[in-house]
Amino acid sequence: MHTIAVLASTRGTDLQALMDAIEQKKLLARLIVICNKECGALERAKKHTIPHYLIPSQGKEREAFDKEIAAILDKEKVELIVLIGYMLYLSPWFANRYRNRIMNIHPSLLPAFAGGMDLNVHEEVLKRGCKISGCTLHFVDEGEDTGPIILQKAVEVKEQDTAETLKERVQKAEQEIILQGIRLFFDGKLQVEGNQVRILA
Amino acid sequence: MHTIAVLASTRGTDLQALMDAIEQKKLLARLIVICNKECGALERAKKHTIPHYLIPSQGKEREAFDKEIAAILDKEKVELIVLIGYMLYLSPWFANRYRNRIMNIHPSLLPAFAGGMDLNVHEEVLKRGCKISGCTLHFVDEGEDTGPIILQKAVEVKEQDTAETLKERVQKAEQEIILQGIRLFFDGKLQVEGNQVRILA
Repeated sequence: MHTIAVLASTRGTDLQALMDAIEQKKLLARLIVICNKECGALERAKKHTIPHYLIPSQGKEREAFDKEIAAILDKEKVELIVLIGYMLYLSPWFANRYRNRIMNIHPSLLPAFAGGMDLNVHEEVLKRGCKISGCTLHFVDEGEDTGPIILQKAVEVKEQDTAETLKERVQKAEQEIILQGIRLFFDGKLQVEGNQVRILA
Repeated sequence: MHTIAVLASTRGTDLQALMDAIEQKKLLARLIVICNKECGALERAKKHTIPHYLIPSQGKEREAFDKEIAAILDKEKVELIVLIGYMLYLSPWFANRYRNRIMNIHPSLLPAFAGGMDLNVHEEVLKRGCKISGCTLHFVDEGEDTGPIILQKAVEVKEQDTAETLKERVQKAEQEIILQGIRLFFDGKLQVEGNQVRILA
């Protein structure tokens, strides 16, 4: 059984979809959840009796904190790390140690609307008057939203959209490509070449 | 009969599609073509006996050149200007004079891959490893690729794509949204509010 660690700091809507997929045997994997603070994602893990860790990040040096996380990942024999609304930058040490084993979901079609910790992406999309948005699943490197892109999915922006209604539709797409990306990963179908991800047939 | 002026400097693949649509009565409009140098677009206009003008831009000040263009637009009673592979920046004077009446087609999903005169967009998309690209029809303002977005269409990047094969697929999408945008314009369905284009039902 493959083990996936989800690192999260926020509501955990996409985490819920992942837990549901595992409970419904759509994905054969074991999940653990690590949060850097009290948050909805942690509550969801508790409720679903999924192994969970609260490792407070406040006041810690980035790399020291990341080493605490790494100790858990090693102990739990984690093969894949998925960042879902994880509001911390990773240290280069961590990004390097788990290179091509950390996935992040970003709520736009990168390189559009990169950076900014994802918080206001949908507002920015609406403010720019975009007619198409979407989401990106990518491997994490030392940069901000610069890592190799695994999957993207376009989402239409509708005339009456608010940031909230757009976010809801984009999150559905996020949940699809997270699941699809994880499957491809464990099937050995993701081949990283430089900054590109080739999806093997 | 509405008159559209196409300003072009390159091969004119999208211009061909527009001429075809008009010849097939899919679009009821009269076309004139203005080029700033000898190019494929000019040859196409000649071949289809469409009114065409060659106004050399070389060595001229931007605004003086744009005033030559404006004289033609006024004489021909042009209501809408469409830039198709037009390799010149417009002067602020021109952009202001025809505000919300100049459309440009850009071969990416703006704001991704803005700028750079469109020449290497598809190569850049492939180099970044994007899985989704597309195109944007927007009104032109004084900035570079910053004007109000009218329509966008997403195009999937395929595993085996080269810049050339991707460009071909994106151009099909360009031709669709150019035609769709022109129809909406003449139907009075495009309402510009600040930097946003509302499409009226």
